[in-house]
Amino acid sequence: MNVTGIVVEYNPLHNGHIFHLNKTKKITQNDYVIAVMSGNFVQRGEPAFINKWARTKMALEAGIDLVIELPTIYSVSSAEGFAFGAISILNSLEIVDSICFGSELGSIYELNIIGKILAEEPPSYQGLLKYYLKHGLSYPAARLHALTDYISDKNILSLGKNHLNTILQSSNNILAIEYLKALHKLSSTIKPYTIKRVKSKYNDIHLTGYISSATAIRKNFHDLNAVKESMPDFTYKIIQNEISCGRGPVCLNDFSQMILYKLRESSRDFIKSLIDVGEGLENKIKFAAEEASNIEELISMLKNKRYTTTRLQRILIYALLNMTKDIQNQIKMSPDYIRILGFNEKGKDLIKLIKSRCKMPLIINPSKKDTDILVYDMLATDIYVLAYKNNAFRKARQDLKVPPVIKPASI
Amino acid sequence: MNVTGIVVEYNPLHNGHIFHLNKTKKITQNDYVIAVMSGNFVQRGEPAFINKWARTKMALEAGIDLVIELPTIYSVSSAEGFAFGAISILNSLEIVDSICFGSELGSIYELNIIGKILAEEPPSYQGLLKYYLKHGLSYPAARLHALTDYISDKNILSLGKNHLNTILQSSNNILAIEYLKALHKLSSTIKPYTIKRVKSKYNDIHLTGYISSATAIRKNFHDLNAVKESMPDFTYKIIQNEISCGRGPVCLNDFSQMILYKLRESSRDFIKSLIDVGEGLENKIKFAAEEASNIEELISMLKNKRYTTTRLQRILIYALLNMTKDIQNQIKMSPDYIRILGFNEKGKDLIKLIKSRCKMPLIINPSKKDTDILVYDMLATDIYVLAYKNNAFRKARQDLKVPPVIKPASI
Repeated sequence: MNVTGIVVEYNPLHNGHIFHLNKTKKITQNDYVIAVMSGNFVQRGEPAFINKWARTKMALEAGIDLVIELPTIYSVSSAEGFAFGAISILNSLEIVDSICFGSELGSIYELNIIGKILAEEPPSYQGLLKYYLKHGLSYPAARLHALTDYISDKNILSLGKNHLNTILQSSNNILAIEYLKALHKLSSTIKPYTIKRVKSKYNDIHLTGYISSATAIRKNFHDLNAVKESMPDFTYKIIQNEISCGRGPVCLNDFSQMILYKLRESSRDFIKSLIDVGEGLENKIKFAAEEASNIEELISMLKNKRYTTTRLQRILIYALLNMTKDIQNQIKMSPDYIRILGFNEKGKDLIKLIKSRCKMPLIINPSKKDTDILVYDMLATDIYVLAYKNNAFRKARQDLKVPPVIKPASI
Repeated sequence: MNVTGIVVEYNPLHNGHIFHLNKTKKITQNDYVIAVMSGNFVQRGEPAFINKWARTKMALEAGIDLVIELPTIYSVSSAEGFAFGAISILNSLEIVDSICFGSELGSIYELNIIGKILAEEPPSYQGLLKYYLKHGLSYPAARLHALTDYISDKNILSLGKNHLNTILQSSNNILAIEYLKALHKLSSTIKPYTIKRVKSKYNDIHLTGYISSATAIRKNFHDLNAVKESMPDFTYKIIQNEISCGRGPVCLNDFSQMILYKLRESSRDFIKSLIDVGEGLENKIKFAAEEASNIEELISMLKNKRYTTTRLQRILIYALLNMTKDIQNQIKMSPDYIRILGFNEKGKDLIKLIKSRCKMPLIINPSKKDTDILVYDMLATDIYVLAYKNNAFRKARQDLKVPPVIKPASI
């Protein structure tokens, strides 16, 4: 049994994802695919467009055999935390042979070397990093310079400095490097593959036909015909069903009142205690929360070179979910449970195998006893559902009520 | 200069209030009227239908000379705290000669004797109270029995037990007794008057023509012509203006998402620490907040003989405004500031006189230095405005921006 793991958000699942999935199966020559998927809040610091159960349905329809939830504390984390959480889960299953992810570079060799350096942090690299930090560069900039110098000093890669810079500045490469770094840190035997990401020709927010970005699809969902060609029929139908039930689409703006409320009633000390809030940002957030009338205004008042929209959005989600700095150590450690969101017939075999090999608790139908372990995932759903238009679905504790999505064998 | 004080909510101001005001002026033969008015959250445990500045305009149009805000910690308190806060303010101004309030009884003598007993708590009354509490009666029931027994034992009032019972069970009498109790507690020299309250013939929620209850008016505001005859023209116009600006009407349901969010993300310990939450109610609230999809459902799940709708609504506002038990002692003490919301030409003279006599800080245009003292009033407004339909008015710190309402001398 050969198993490949992938890390997804499917927010929502579109033709680009199908392309990635087919290519993954081809490259790895594997029969089984497991996806680790973000739950109800995603890495951009936003609520998922459609809830995790509907997105699990999409994944199963696309041909994924088993969908595992990436715990919320990782799913709304920076690239490093996000990647570490996802890779840790795949590694801990003890049945995954290969991992495949997208990257702008499309070649694993260079990315892997960079990932290894970042995982091992050899002394001369550390020296360079310290040097650049001392000279006033921000951490990401210092890391970029240190890496470039280290690689050219050691002559490890035959890449020009400019090319290396380009690699290190593309979002999918960054995530790919984090995946590889996590594999090294975990001394994993899983074999990594990468697929060249087909970039949309135009800006991310515009639909570009058969292959469009998830951002463009979310932004244009009011124009049903326009988005239809960018996604498989089943995605379209699942989303349509969610909309007609009054369960979506959910967007950050639906949390405007709650987030402004939370920031206005919270003390500066609480805001200061949130992950990623430092250097007086709590004062700026408090001031902006008083002046702003919605999330868009709030973000635009706080945005600068250092605090990007995504980073700020993540901080707002940390506030909403009470994610304070005391869980930062938890994020640095591997997840301690496996929560299954859905599976097909082949997924059943995978679950059996995982049960026999994996040392962590496997949660399929969460019960009362799991509420302590799933605390942030449960809270995330409890708050996510408050954005639904239909009152009937706003009840909390849905993680204890909604069964896993099961795709029966096709006849 | 003879000055009368009244305690109002004007939520909204209607013909019944005008009747009360005219009668007050007639009975007290006074030229000046000062109103202490609830701010943006009122005693029923609800947001005010229309904000405090618009309601101040109504009061000034009706002929009130000076409007003072009842601090939020009192305005959302039980009858005892509400009355004590309001009477304390009027007493501390050192310029008020008389107070006039409504009651079902319409006679001050009996109400005053009851108020005095409750303020002084003579030993034999205390003994009776303990006796009934020991026998399992709730505090309000035990108080009712102890009072009835005490009054008939001492033969203070020539009222039958049944009549006394009726008096003690009518909401306006209860409030009147609390006003009188506060006057006794404060050893105030202010002379109390009462006006018989004209009860609507039908249920409170139905409009009954020229005189209708504020509840009925709020419930029927969608039918503009129906409510129009129950209120003066200026009230109608002020409300219309607020609605067209997108600043109202505001109702408890507008806080559904925020309150459910707050209760879902808060710990049981936090809910337990709220004013008036005891005996395991925190567990019931936590459970209901998980099951309910809006405030109405939440209340109906929690309502019983002991926890009435009003009491529960107040608890929800305590949760929304972080009003925990540690401010209960503060509520038992007199307010320590006078916040003026509006005045007319005659009100200017009153302000001058208050400045020369009153020992407390008089706040007319709140500044940064007042944010500590006004903390709950400011927070109440910061959160209240999040219910506005119009984004432009959702900015916080409006207590520092909106000037007092000034009614110029008529030409």
